[in-house]
Amino acid sequence: MARIDDVLSAIDADQGPALDRLFQLLAIPSISAISAHHPDCERAADWLAAQLTELGFEAKKHPTDGRPMVVGHAKASRPEGPHVLFYGHYDVQPVDPLQLWRNPPFEPKLESGPHGDRILARGASDDKGQLMTFLEACRAFKAFGGPPCAITVLLEGEEETGSQSLEPFLAKNAAMLKADVALVCDTGMWGRDTPAITTALRGLVGEEVILRGANRDLHSGIYGGAAVNPIHVLSRILGSLHDENGAIALPGFYEGVEELPEEIAEQWRALDFDAAAFLGAVGLTTPAGERDRTPLEQLWSRPTCDVNGVSGGYSGEGIKTVLPAEARAKVSFRLVGDQKSERVAQAFRAFVTSRLPPDVKAEFIGHGGSGAISLPVKNEALRIARRALEAEWGKPAALVACGASIPIVGSFKRELNMDSLLVGFAHEDDQIHSPNEKYERVSFHKGARSWARILAALAA
Amino acid sequence: MARIDDVLSAIDADQGPALDRLFQLLAIPSISAISAHHPDCERAADWLAAQLTELGFEAKKHPTDGRPMVVGHAKASRPEGPHVLFYGHYDVQPVDPLQLWRNPPFEPKLESGPHGDRILARGASDDKGQLMTFLEACRAFKAFGGPPCAITVLLEGEEETGSQSLEPFLAKNAAMLKADVALVCDTGMWGRDTPAITTALRGLVGEEVILRGANRDLHSGIYGGAAVNPIHVLSRILGSLHDENGAIALPGFYEGVEELPEEIAEQWRALDFDAAAFLGAVGLTTPAGERDRTPLEQLWSRPTCDVNGVSGGYSGEGIKTVLPAEARAKVSFRLVGDQKSERVAQAFRAFVTSRLPPDVKAEFIGHGGSGAISLPVKNEALRIARRALEAEWGKPAALVACGASIPIVGSFKRELNMDSLLVGFAHEDDQIHSPNEKYERVSFHKGARSWARILAALAA
Repeated sequence: MARIDDVLSAIDADQGPALDRLFQLLAIPSISAISAHHPDCERAADWLAAQLTELGFEAKKHPTDGRPMVVGHAKASRPEGPHVLFYGHYDVQPVDPLQLWRNPPFEPKLESGPHGDRILARGASDDKGQLMTFLEACRAFKAFGGPPCAITVLLEGEEETGSQSLEPFLAKNAAMLKADVALVCDTGMWGRDTPAITTALRGLVGEEVILRGANRDLHSGIYGGAAVNPIHVLSRILGSLHDENGAIALPGFYEGVEELPEEIAEQWRALDFDAAAFLGAVGLTTPAGERDRTPLEQLWSRPTCDVNGVSGGYSGEGIKTVLPAEARAKVSFRLVGDQKSERVAQAFRAFVTSRLPPDVKAEFIGHGGSGAISLPVKNEALRIARRALEAEWGKPAALVACGASIPIVGSFKRELNMDSLLVGFAHEDDQIHSPNEKYERVSFHKGARSWARILAALAA
Repeated sequence: MARIDDVLSAIDADQGPALDRLFQLLAIPSISAISAHHPDCERAADWLAAQLTELGFEAKKHPTDGRPMVVGHAKASRPEGPHVLFYGHYDVQPVDPLQLWRNPPFEPKLESGPHGDRILARGASDDKGQLMTFLEACRAFKAFGGPPCAITVLLEGEEETGSQSLEPFLAKNAAMLKADVALVCDTGMWGRDTPAITTALRGLVGEEVILRGANRDLHSGIYGGAAVNPIHVLSRILGSLHDENGAIALPGFYEGVEELPEEIAEQWRALDFDAAAFLGAVGLTTPAGERDRTPLEQLWSRPTCDVNGVSGGYSGEGIKTVLPAEARAKVSFRLVGDQKSERVAQAFRAFVTSRLPPDVKAEFIGHGGSGAISLPVKNEALRIARRALEAEWGKPAALVACGASIPIVGSFKRELNMDSLLVGFAHEDDQIHSPNEKYERVSFHKGARSWARILAALAA
């Protein structure tokens, strides 16, 4: 097996060609949301399958009902060690508004920035630059007999449009895709030089409620004062979902919510999260959630309830004296620990139903849900990856969480019973989904080196 | 002066031609909301001016920025007695959906119904049939030397589209229009055979509030739990506008609200209002307003607060995990007694502002307001009209109130300092604004007789 220093030196020596390869991929406008660009998605998939083949993978493009999957398999250079599945996506977001770009979005360009050179293009960070860090790591092993552990690469082309084909593809090809652990490169660094592994993702349950009163909209002059107003009832209910301390008032809601293990709590304290800067960036000053929790807990390890939309009555210009027949709200809950999405949905429905006055009926529409996901701190792959990242960056990798869901992680767990190791090199200022998306050249270079170290360490 | 019995006999003898005249007016599709029908509005105004001239009025059509006004003046047949201003409107509502009409809406037709013959056409009740009762009464006096008191007739053509031109016209022509009392024929009977005079109208104030949190919509996964959600804040505020007894919680809101005079309260008890039927017609069972008030009080003599519209966040299909930057509500208050619209608006703004958490700001948009209007029970014209109606219908006229505003009444009070006597012969089942609008033939006939009696009594 190759000595890791040799592999890293190969990456260092190959930086120019590596950048050329990334630019080739970035030049393909593989926008999954726009059907005129679907042929470009095919081209991107073909290009990636060819890359993998060149790297010694058995690779091909797999058609789906949507954009194709690219799957490649590489045997390990030695029999021991785990089998890993790497996931990335080759589709990108649309580029509007085009006039805000400093350079055409599909003509990748190197420009200098405050942290060194950076790669300017749509997809530079999300996710072409990130997935190419892994492929460049694989390339570096080529001269040394191939990757140190068995690798399956899965690249999809619908991540920006809801990954409709992914679960069916996983279910149908479980045998082909099952590995010991999934490696996902679609997340970020903690700080400018601090690598991060995302170990927890909150779950999500969505509920919609429609309250109905009279059998038609009424004139508020003729009926006002005697007829029930569903907006009032809805407001009262939504206004009581949180208590005065910001806690969620649904009975039983906190069942399954666990206190943060001291090991993680200590980790998070050490992150020295700047809540003022985080909120300040969107014009806020004051954490508005559970009073007795730190902002990081509020965001990462505590469940939430947010009304995502409310509507009822007249919303046009001016005023209309309508006493509306119905009012509706969309409510979602972020789940943590062992909270069950079905039980939370039931608790919400019971909470609403128990608060209805005479003449008001509730209809509920469930929008599905899934529980939180976390990688145990003592997970072996996590421990190894963390050490490898520290070796590369000179700082311990932060173990962070993410308040949002990353659907692929749930899919891997559900369909393939596989944990995911989320490692990525993006930065908050990468402008993903926005004009002038960029990826730091150092992310691209040291990202490849990081994966080389992780692969070597996992195989050791 | 004519003996009233002779005038009434003239009306009885002239029923056929009277119906022909009404049908001529109903055949003109004077829909003010549809610009293609504006020439029809001109035709209706011309027809009415010609009618008034034929009746001995000095009458003409007055252009405005919108549809024209028709104004006619008739001298009294004797010098004593009050000068009255009669108001009606010649414009009608659109007729959609046309396929639901039993007969083309502008081809008036007599059909038999459960209460005798009825006149089927758009505008039959609202307001052409009603205004023609007054013109037919005037016609009956013609053979006896003209009306017993001085009459100004004011007919507008924008009532169904907001009466934009009315206040400027009143202000500009105050001298021409000022009279001792206004007679308005645009309201209804209390029961099938029970006439009614509407003596109180609630006022109205409209307020819109926009609550803003973050400077943009946020991802509820990334920010949820720490960032303030303006929908939550708005819900809590709207949900606290009423207390647990249904009373409105704004400090000072009830200043100027008076208890119902016992004379009126007794009147209302005698009306034997069927709250169950009133609510049942719209699918409700339970009065939802102030607990300690009767339904008629809730509707007629108590102030209200109704949220007419609420919106914020995502309202499309499915769920979107947005934590919205803003939420808004439109709120209106029905006022009674001496409540001041400005003070109520201020109280609402103070109520909202005092409940804002950090980082949430409120913007308010005032949509104007006006106080309640009532005719004192001891008003001389009211007393006279009531006796005249009883003579015609054989039952005492109910003194009723209306929970809604009738803007013209406020305009007469404001611009001309004139009280209004609201007498009309419509029924709840007249289908005004809907397909198959009708007016009972008995309303048309006895309506004319009622006005003849009222005019004679006012002049006596």
